[in-house]
Amino acid sequence: VARILLTGASGFVGRETLTALCATEHEVISAGRKLPTGAWPTRWHGLDLTDRHAVDALMREIRPEIVLHLAWDVEHGKFWTSPANLDSLGASLNVLRAAAHAGLRRFVGIGTCFEYVWPAEGACDERSTPIGPNTVYATAKDAMRRVAESFCREAAISFAWGRLFHLAGPAEQPGRFVPAVTNHLLRGEPAPISNGALVRDFMDVRDAGQGLARLALSEVEGPVNVATGRPVTLAEIANGIAGLLGRPDLLRFGALPERAGEPPRIVASVERLRREVGFEPAHSLDATLRDCVAYWRAR
Amino acid sequence: VARILLTGASGFVGRETLTALCATEHEVISAGRKLPTGAWPTRWHGLDLTDRHAVDALMREIRPEIVLHLAWDVEHGKFWTSPANLDSLGASLNVLRAAAHAGLRRFVGIGTCFEYVWPAEGACDERSTPIGPNTVYATAKDAMRRVAESFCREAAISFAWGRLFHLAGPAEQPGRFVPAVTNHLLRGEPAPISNGALVRDFMDVRDAGQGLARLALSEVEGPVNVATGRPVTLAEIANGIAGLLGRPDLLRFGALPERAGEPPRIVASVERLRREVGFEPAHSLDATLRDCVAYWRAR
Repeated sequence: VARILLTGASGFVGRETLTALCATEHEVISAGRKLPTGAWPTRWHGLDLTDRHAVDALMREIRPEIVLHLAWDVEHGKFWTSPANLDSLGASLNVLRAAAHAGLRRFVGIGTCFEYVWPAEGACDERSTPIGPNTVYATAKDAMRRVAESFCREAAISFAWGRLFHLAGPAEQPGRFVPAVTNHLLRGEPAPISNGALVRDFMDVRDAGQGLARLALSEVEGPVNVATGRPVTLAEIANGIAGLLGRPDLLRFGALPERAGEPPRIVASVERLRREVGFEPAHSLDATLRDCVAYWRAR
Repeated sequence: VARILLTGASGFVGRETLTALCATEHEVISAGRKLPTGAWPTRWHGLDLTDRHAVDALMREIRPEIVLHLAWDVEHGKFWTSPANLDSLGASLNVLRAAAHAGLRRFVGIGTCFEYVWPAEGACDERSTPIGPNTVYATAKDAMRRVAESFCREAAISFAWGRLFHLAGPAEQPGRFVPAVTNHLLRGEPAPISNGALVRDFMDVRDAGQGLARLALSEVEGPVNVATGRPVTLAEIANGIAGLLGRPDLLRFGALPERAGEPPRIVASVERLRREVGFEPAHSLDATLRDCVAYWRAR
């Protein structure tokens, strides 16, 4: 039984990761500014991770063997360029340094598909796809990976970096793609969409939580894509939601501008996740969309 | 006249940078844990740059137009792998974020020749030499450059990154190469040296301070090597010191092990420094060594 510290447990993927970890035999502790909602059998420490001394005190007290560090400020619509990325990187460095000082054995951080130079065809592969972030957010994530990998190698700490791609699931921030389309259709309003032909890799957030928990508890090292490997177009997702709600007439493809630099295709290679971590997602896209629609219908 | 904030002003190169800046017409403010020694006509604010709130308060008070950020923990013999690099990176992010929030116009940070994959022949060039740091220190410096460059681009802040190579000059940390050889010879003891054939680019620290001040006050953007472009072997330096002290008999080449990964050659291309910043170093190697020997003789 290992003592594992989870940060960011109140976030979209953090909640599901906490649920997954608490279903194991391990001792799970979470820490951060916001109390995770739900009734997990877990200890929670309230602190601001940008406060270096508070993080030092936390680590001295709990002495985690494994840290799964999810905390990062990702306010929808702002996080691509926000100065908050500098704080989130600073907080991540606090967590790593203080945990290492308190005897950490394994550190698992969370990256993003936006670290890659996305290939026009095929999938982003952890070993062969070049790294080339072009936002402040992804540059800061990539910087954390570089520093943590180097530091952990020197300190003989096991290190992995779970790269999340796109996520969907109940209780997502309302401004994001699936909630936005769903809520427009639920109100009987036209749903503006950018380019329906964009190909993405959408993972159910509950699978992402399970996958991250499994990665943290494995001994796999280095970057690992936590995704489905299954390409899907934004049009397929929008049509899936519209089909469940019986309102395909309300979809307005092309009515929203594309974000500058949006690539046509972002899909993960999931060979490492499947073969080395031994994880397969459990939810089909249809099942995910059904649960999302049910969630927003009940609001 | 610009208001310029200098961090790290109490350090080896910081003291000379402060002297250089105070000789201009600009308003110079320094900040950090240690009061810079000497009697400059400058304001100093005492604070720990890893303290996010203290850095916020400082920037709100002084609202610098230019920040020249030198502060970084470089304790001799430890800094290559030290966890202190994570704190120094966190402090650097604090400085950038808080200064940007307070209306910063230009940010100049300090990198290192250890960011480069050193070519076996020729010089490290800012535009064409690949980046591939292989220590925690250089990885953290490189991470700061990546994040700061991306953030400043988004925030329309002018950004430059002065890459220092090797330095020499009076008042260096006693464990480093020139002071160590000098002090052995002054005591009439054998001076153990690793590999005399290693080729390096040694700049006088007073020239480095002038060069950094000029870079900060210029509008040149991106990475700029702050070095001499003049290859010199460790043997030439040791022989120079021994010649001044009349004790060539005490030099022991090969008596110290080489640090793992020490490359045979690290020399800068100084085209950007010369042509764009318009700076040339004023000290010959002989002049530098004479001043170093005089400094240690007077201790």
